[in-house]
Amino acid sequence: MSTLAAQLEQMENHRSVFENEVRKLPLPTCTAFGSAAAPQAIAFAATDRVLSTRDSATVAARFPQSVAASGNVVLRADGLAPTRVSGKRVAALFSGGPAAGGHNVLCGIKKLLGADNTLFGVKGGPKGLLQGKLFEITDADAASILNTGGFDFLGTDRTKIKTAEQFEQVKQTCITHNLDAIVIIGGDDSNTNAALLAEFLYTGIKADGSGVQVLGAPKTIDGDLQVPGLLPISFGFDTATRIYAELAGNILQDTRSSVKYWHFIKLMGRSASHVTLEVALQTKPAVTLISEEVAAKKMSLGAIVEQIANAVVDRYKNKGLKHGVVLVPEGLIEFIPEINALLAELNDVVAHHAEAFTALPAEARPAFVSSHLAAANATLFGSLPAYIVNMLLAERDSHGNLQVSLIPTEQLLSDMVRARLVATAPDVPFSTHHHFFGYEGRCGAPTLFDAAYTWNLGLTVGALILAGKTGYMASVSGLTSGGEPLAIPLTGLFNVERRHGQDEYVIEKALVRTEAAAMQFFVSRRAAWAADDCFASPGPRQLWGPAARQMPMTVALNEGADSLLFKIGE
Amino acid sequence: MSTLAAQLEQMENHRSVFENEVRKLPLPTCTAFGSAAAPQAIAFAATDRVLSTRDSATVAARFPQSVAASGNVVLRADGLAPTRVSGKRVAALFSGGPAAGGHNVLCGIKKLLGADNTLFGVKGGPKGLLQGKLFEITDADAASILNTGGFDFLGTDRTKIKTAEQFEQVKQTCITHNLDAIVIIGGDDSNTNAALLAEFLYTGIKADGSGVQVLGAPKTIDGDLQVPGLLPISFGFDTATRIYAELAGNILQDTRSSVKYWHFIKLMGRSASHVTLEVALQTKPAVTLISEEVAAKKMSLGAIVEQIANAVVDRYKNKGLKHGVVLVPEGLIEFIPEINALLAELNDVVAHHAEAFTALPAEARPAFVSSHLAAANATLFGSLPAYIVNMLLAERDSHGNLQVSLIPTEQLLSDMVRARLVATAPDVPFSTHHHFFGYEGRCGAPTLFDAAYTWNLGLTVGALILAGKTGYMASVSGLTSGGEPLAIPLTGLFNVERRHGQDEYVIEKALVRTEAAAMQFFVSRRAAWAADDCFASPGPRQLWGPAARQMPMTVALNEGADSLLFKIGE
Repeated sequence: MSTLAAQLEQMENHRSVFENEVRKLPLPTCTAFGSAAAPQAIAFAATDRVLSTRDSATVAARFPQSVAASGNVVLRADGLAPTRVSGKRVAALFSGGPAAGGHNVLCGIKKLLGADNTLFGVKGGPKGLLQGKLFEITDADAASILNTGGFDFLGTDRTKIKTAEQFEQVKQTCITHNLDAIVIIGGDDSNTNAALLAEFLYTGIKADGSGVQVLGAPKTIDGDLQVPGLLPISFGFDTATRIYAELAGNILQDTRSSVKYWHFIKLMGRSASHVTLEVALQTKPAVTLISEEVAAKKMSLGAIVEQIANAVVDRYKNKGLKHGVVLVPEGLIEFIPEINALLAELNDVVAHHAEAFTALPAEARPAFVSSHLAAANATLFGSLPAYIVNMLLAERDSHGNLQVSLIPTEQLLSDMVRARLVATAPDVPFSTHHHFFGYEGRCGAPTLFDAAYTWNLGLTVGALILAGKTGYMASVSGLTSGGEPLAIPLTGLFNVERRHGQDEYVIEKALVRTEAAAMQFFVSRRAAWAADDCFASPGPRQLWGPAARQMPMTVALNEGADSLLFKIGE
Repeated sequence: MSTLAAQLEQMENHRSVFENEVRKLPLPTCTAFGSAAAPQAIAFAATDRVLSTRDSATVAARFPQSVAASGNVVLRADGLAPTRVSGKRVAALFSGGPAAGGHNVLCGIKKLLGADNTLFGVKGGPKGLLQGKLFEITDADAASILNTGGFDFLGTDRTKIKTAEQFEQVKQTCITHNLDAIVIIGGDDSNTNAALLAEFLYTGIKADGSGVQVLGAPKTIDGDLQVPGLLPISFGFDTATRIYAELAGNILQDTRSSVKYWHFIKLMGRSASHVTLEVALQTKPAVTLISEEVAAKKMSLGAIVEQIANAVVDRYKNKGLKHGVVLVPEGLIEFIPEINALLAELNDVVAHHAEAFTALPAEARPAFVSSHLAAANATLFGSLPAYIVNMLLAERDSHGNLQVSLIPTEQLLSDMVRARLVATAPDVPFSTHHHFFGYEGRCGAPTLFDAAYTWNLGLTVGALILAGKTGYMASVSGLTSGGEPLAIPLTGLFNVERRHGQDEYVIEKALVRTEAAAMQFFVSRRAAWAADDCFASPGPRQLWGPAARQMPMTVALNEGADSLLFKIGE
């Protein structure tokens, strides 16, 4: 075998040139932890920020121990910990879809816990916690996953821990493994689960009658887990949006090189349009749809189509441009009020006539459903192309939701734009391509921002464990001023929603606010971007060199930063 | 407006943080050019390499002036040019699909020509040359496009210059603009066009009776423009494959994080499987199909499906894995002999019965075509899913070819694998996702390899112009030993093909050779990659830092390199 072939074989199993080098990359560390080389445990003190929602009273009744202990007060770092805590046994797991930086959260916890405490990884997400699938994470493990993408070191799943039996299973896992703390790294639902477990495990679990701490870390590429002033963004958002923005930038460059195509790009993100807004700010395409604005303005499907068609016509008539890019948020269709009304009634009809509906052959279902719809909805339903009708009647996910990711909104919009152009401006050329950027963005190698952010989130979680805290979600705020570890009491974020006849405690998804600085900036520039090519390419994510240290544009604008540089550790 | 908003507005029009920084990146320069800071014109000397093909005699008769002048001898650098040539007027254009590094070819030419010669850009590809759409490229232009992706500075198109009238139009453009040289930056067809123009413009164009030089630069992301020992790779291949490999790596990471999906990924590349092979070497997925191997082994569609299904079953039964990735080259379907036979007869039937076929409604066409097919082909045709049948009967491109990129091979294969599993291994879970990575990869910011390679290709073209050469394609060989500028006589590469009753001069596409080192290495490892997860992620392309300097793995293996480091300028 040649020397080179031997080297290439050595690169299997996450040992590419990049992966080998990125593991050695030093990470900026908040000064609160004392030293970047040897971060120390810290003490926590109350801030003057007390969280409340419209349902705080109900929540306090359901989470009496947690709320009594935390008072829903946000905690900040308060110097190094006065004494060294040792002997803690901690289990960490991933929950929900993967996001870049999860591995660094583990590395940060491991580092902070040090050699005199034990960190276990839970294989396969919440289900693995129920089954007690724990193994000890070694220093070598941590070194091997530092700065790498994905959740593959542990795996993940979407099991919700809800039933009394499941809670008992978790308790059993705690007892079997003599755990002192559980860390759930996940999105809004997963952090809700963390709070429920924190309350359930608050006391009486261990032999001495004490409880098991439960802490959360804020993950989701959608960016919809944010708390103004406290949690600037969930981790994974920066990496996913930079991946999508690079690809969108490449395609914008392609449109101006080939000068003959409109590309419709759908971007992952279940509800909120943060991802789409960030990609728009990074790349400046001709048309960007923001679901929250569509809903706020009560735009009809026809109005959206008209907006895009007008851009196509104006660019051609005024500038001779036959190309452009349209960004479409994945969840758009549910934010269009008339579609929303249709979907709501469709969900009802399908649920109420489930047996009859399921018994029908697929081709008979549209007529069956239509016959049960109100007149306006039936008309809209009948006007949609067959492939969209089929999608709307497709299977629901495990939460009973329509799987919006399956609806080819980008194709629907371009088909409707084409039909409109044929009718109103037949001389305007309109050739199209379609894309969905989704899975490509969840498991990429973290940006320097996500790598540093998650490392410090992990350190914060570790410090909270050693400080004996429970029921908090870790955060790193102060991105423009050195980085500040915070602990957010989860019960302070909860509202109560009635679902399937039961009270559910939910962290309200942070949607794009039309009055936020990022949205305002977008609104101020979009007419220029539509009129003529103004695009830029953020390029591939750099881990070294002068372009590495950037934070998301939406975050920088909304945080009132004076540049894109994040300043953790400075 | 906030300080930050003002900064963000400044980033419009290719002035992102990355784009601003990457323009300042110094590029390695072959020592032949004397100085990286101020590359000099060079002299060229004959090597002992004389090119010939089976059709050399026919080619010599068609290109008498070019062949007489070059003798089909490859040229190498031979010291700095003895005298400074000035006053040359040169026009450069892009031809065909965009590829990363094209802008740097222009920058290299501009640099080498210096202030005492003039470089024009041709807007809109070969069609722009016919129309005389020229403008002078300034130093400021060159500085603004250095190291940026895409062809958007000039645009491109796919016009072939074939008719006598078109040749006259080019001549007129040369006269109008008093040109001394034309540079065509394109793929195999475009370089063929360069040779035809070189012969046509060889003499008698300018007032003094002299001709206009025509030179080519080897572009194509497909990587199928290679000359063993002389041209290691076409530019744009490294960038496109690194983009696709990063995405495939992300998805591999996602499969092991979510542990429940098989992803079928189709990769751009009209005929050859170089792109797919490179992405496989970079990422090590469970199954990779190589079209050339399928053709060589005369594999049936059923055999391919069986190979994939076996991997699905074995991974599940032996390792409990429910996930994996399958890489599918875009052109695969045409390399399957039985499909190929069907397609050939389909093309004939559609062509011979064009009027009757076109007159039929779409739903009647399959039966009509089937009735004209030979029995074996009719059987295969009848066994394909309806959506594939519709694709096979879809419109041809301008060359009369089936638009293979429209055929959802990845969907066809996964549907057939599912059907096979249902029949033979119904207990094996098989959930799928599908991707086509294409346009995302053509216009990305160049890798350091493509940036350096194209910069030196441009310098070589500039030097050939000042040395008075015509009918050559520039190359940079010796990637592992400092980089060596070469000039390849295009006529030495031509074979003759009979198309539409006419002789066409073609550069044979370099396909993946099963005996090449890169393919051999792949074959030696693929069983291990299929059996269990071995994948790696090449990560995002780095322009700075320790992971920046890499060449494509296929190139390094085939060139006999001892590492992935390319050594241009060392």
